[in-house]
Amino acid sequence: MSKLRILLKDADVITVNGNNDLLKKSCIGISGTTIDYVGDYNADLEDNYHTVMNCRGKIVMPGFINAHNHTPMSILRNYADDLKLMDWLFNKIFPIEDKLTPEAVHAAANLAILEMLKGGTTCFSDMYFFMDRVAQAVGDSGIRAVLSRGLQGESGEEDLDYRLQENIEFYKSYHHAFSGRIQVMFGPHSVYTCSLPYLKKVANKAAQMNVPVQIHLSETKDEVKNCIEKYGISPIKLADSAGLLNERTLAAHCVVVDDEDIEILYKRKVNVVHNPRSNMKLGSGVAPIGKLLDKGINIALGTDGASSNNNLDMLGEMRMAAYLQKVFTEDPTALPVDQVIKMATVNGAKALNMHELGKIEPGMKADIIIIDTEKAHYYPKYNAKSSLVYSSNSEDVETVIIDGRIIMKDKEVLTMDEERILFDAQEWAEKLTK
Amino acid sequence: MSKLRILLKDADVITVNGNNDLLKKSCIGISGTTIDYVGDYNADLEDNYHTVMNCRGKIVMPGFINAHNHTPMSILRNYADDLKLMDWLFNKIFPIEDKLTPEAVHAAANLAILEMLKGGTTCFSDMYFFMDRVAQAVGDSGIRAVLSRGLQGESGEEDLDYRLQENIEFYKSYHHAFSGRIQVMFGPHSVYTCSLPYLKKVANKAAQMNVPVQIHLSETKDEVKNCIEKYGISPIKLADSAGLLNERTLAAHCVVVDDEDIEILYKRKVNVVHNPRSNMKLGSGVAPIGKLLDKGINIALGTDGASSNNNLDMLGEMRMAAYLQKVFTEDPTALPVDQVIKMATVNGAKALNMHELGKIEPGMKADIIIIDTEKAHYYPKYNAKSSLVYSSNSEDVETVIIDGRIIMKDKEVLTMDEERILFDAQEWAEKLTK
Repeated sequence: MSKLRILLKDADVITVNGNNDLLKKSCIGISGTTIDYVGDYNADLEDNYHTVMNCRGKIVMPGFINAHNHTPMSILRNYADDLKLMDWLFNKIFPIEDKLTPEAVHAAANLAILEMLKGGTTCFSDMYFFMDRVAQAVGDSGIRAVLSRGLQGESGEEDLDYRLQENIEFYKSYHHAFSGRIQVMFGPHSVYTCSLPYLKKVANKAAQMNVPVQIHLSETKDEVKNCIEKYGISPIKLADSAGLLNERTLAAHCVVVDDEDIEILYKRKVNVVHNPRSNMKLGSGVAPIGKLLDKGINIALGTDGASSNNNLDMLGEMRMAAYLQKVFTEDPTALPVDQVIKMATVNGAKALNMHELGKIEPGMKADIIIIDTEKAHYYPKYNAKSSLVYSSNSEDVETVIIDGRIIMKDKEVLTMDEERILFDAQEWAEKLTK
Repeated sequence: MSKLRILLKDADVITVNGNNDLLKKSCIGISGTTIDYVGDYNADLEDNYHTVMNCRGKIVMPGFINAHNHTPMSILRNYADDLKLMDWLFNKIFPIEDKLTPEAVHAAANLAILEMLKGGTTCFSDMYFFMDRVAQAVGDSGIRAVLSRGLQGESGEEDLDYRLQENIEFYKSYHHAFSGRIQVMFGPHSVYTCSLPYLKKVANKAAQMNVPVQIHLSETKDEVKNCIEKYGISPIKLADSAGLLNERTLAAHCVVVDDEDIEILYKRKVNVVHNPRSNMKLGSGVAPIGKLLDKGINIALGTDGASSNNNLDMLGEMRMAAYLQKVFTEDPTALPVDQVIKMATVNGAKALNMHELGKIEPGMKADIIIIDTEKAHYYPKYNAKSSLVYSSNSEDVETVIIDGRIIMKDKEVLTMDEERILFDAQEWAEKLTK
């Protein structure tokens, strides 16, 4: 089969390249799964591509990379809110999670992926269980993902071992599956749900198999306090002592960090995922993102699960990240638009070890979104980057291309049966919470 | 002409009544400008109304009341961001404001009203100049508003007097205009842009003419510091000493307030408008909303002007208000959904002295919005109030009814020429910033 060749023309392109170039009325050529042209229009271009999409007045940019999620938790969106963390977890979330079946996880993953595609997310990172069902939903929908089996439990080595074994099997079956759209990580949940010997075992296995690791680190004051009480050191130091931290590690949250923690994150070149809405909604606190960025640490952006957010909207997450740092530091120049756009794109690519994503440049994978700006909230049009971060709305995303394939066109997801997915999610929600 | 009679049926109604009732599959009857029925369906109902609108699966609720705005500043949306406050104001905003013409203000007000209608705002409060042009835009569009001429300047009594005189003339011409859709306030801008004798003069005139007042109060640390340096007391104490504070006064921001300030706001029964996104974006700080609410102070919600937000989206503002209090107090139970929904509706009505707005109840004005929830981010549907505050999106608002008249239907604003408004806004923006 000959390669699909698509030309996007007359677009305002937020490239997220090294110069943060914003190109006006420009063209992007796609050949197969890859971007092969970025630049001015010329008449010859139209002959070189099968499909020409007019993007006049639209913003075109790399798809968003949601670097921390638990897609099956979308089934618990808006089920329990405005509660204390432990009340929420132990009385609301855990009892339902215990009842989840592979089919329910599949339905929830479909719902989450549908929502992410609608809002322009083209790649996500996930940590949960029944991950083969999530992988199936990724494969069928056309999205890209980095998946890991959540490794947790304090109930003794044997119980923990079967989960690690599952993660290993999952890696063997799905790493690079679906033309490379899936990659697999190990997912030790946290220092408060895994024993230290277990964390070491995971780290050793990861090193031996060359598999990267993602983990929740220093999300709340209680986590840090309890870790220091138990081990005498912070969660970040503990994870480092277990051998978990390196340049391919994804550390979610990092809200409660001191200067020594920051030094470790920097030295180990750990990738941090900032989840501002989840941290705010759960009252966890504010990660010192400006400080981490100044240090040179790579910061990606994530939504966390929808049950503590309550959606999977990277445009909203970008805006929240910017506003939260501005008010937290009382400095309106904090986290300017170029930085926050990088967090949602190229920094996420780096964090997920997918170095061909996150930029509009020849040679990069064609994961591209097109945003409709013919709406009152985009006017007047002074600056497409400011519009994107400060005025846009997830519903403005019109078209989504992943791996060179048109997945959503004019807001219709071509690879998924939307009505069916909403119906199934509702049916499972009612079954689980009855 | 016989009264237009509309029946909304099969709706999930967020009433915002005294019990915060959420009614399932219920009906709302509208006769003329007023709600005359709220309750269960019965077949007779259909005979009593000319128009029946099926609202199955949709959220129906009072329109949002945006209690603090400067609509003409929409012309400067995304013109200058990520700047220090004084740099932003003196080098970017003020030079353009100096060039504004009545026609530019008219174009900007139209843009702002179009955006507000699209997002479900049915009433707003405004403070600026060339307010007759804003009034005209309000009249033509069918929205409801409380308008005031911004009174500011340190350039001597005479200069200030012509502005007050304009506000008085504007009151005489437009108070209760357009079937009562417009009300007029006096708009002394702040304690840092008005001298104390001038504030007293405005207060006296307001008392004499029985006109309520709106003012910016205690927005930033600098404002409070400078006021104490100049007068020895806080802005709230100064405004009180000038006689400006009473139960019909609207005080915008109130970010930097101490216990004595709060006591004054409480004793004078002042209405406070919270503007979380503007306060965050400008790095001003966090208003202690939980504390003010606990004290029994009425808190409304506003967007402030679009140039420091950067849009006029009350759904987004509600969500931001909730998340900001949760993280600021490190308490996920802070500002729960019922409170934040009230802030955006009935509390705003009280603050604007429009006591027939903000609730779905017989006898109230028919200012009602219908929200489409057949989208992935609303699923599963456990709790319509949580969905509204934590998952919704301004683009989900489908239909807007104001004063019993359908102003927006299926996302089309029937009273405005959208294409023309966007074109005019862009043309003015380019002219002003050339």
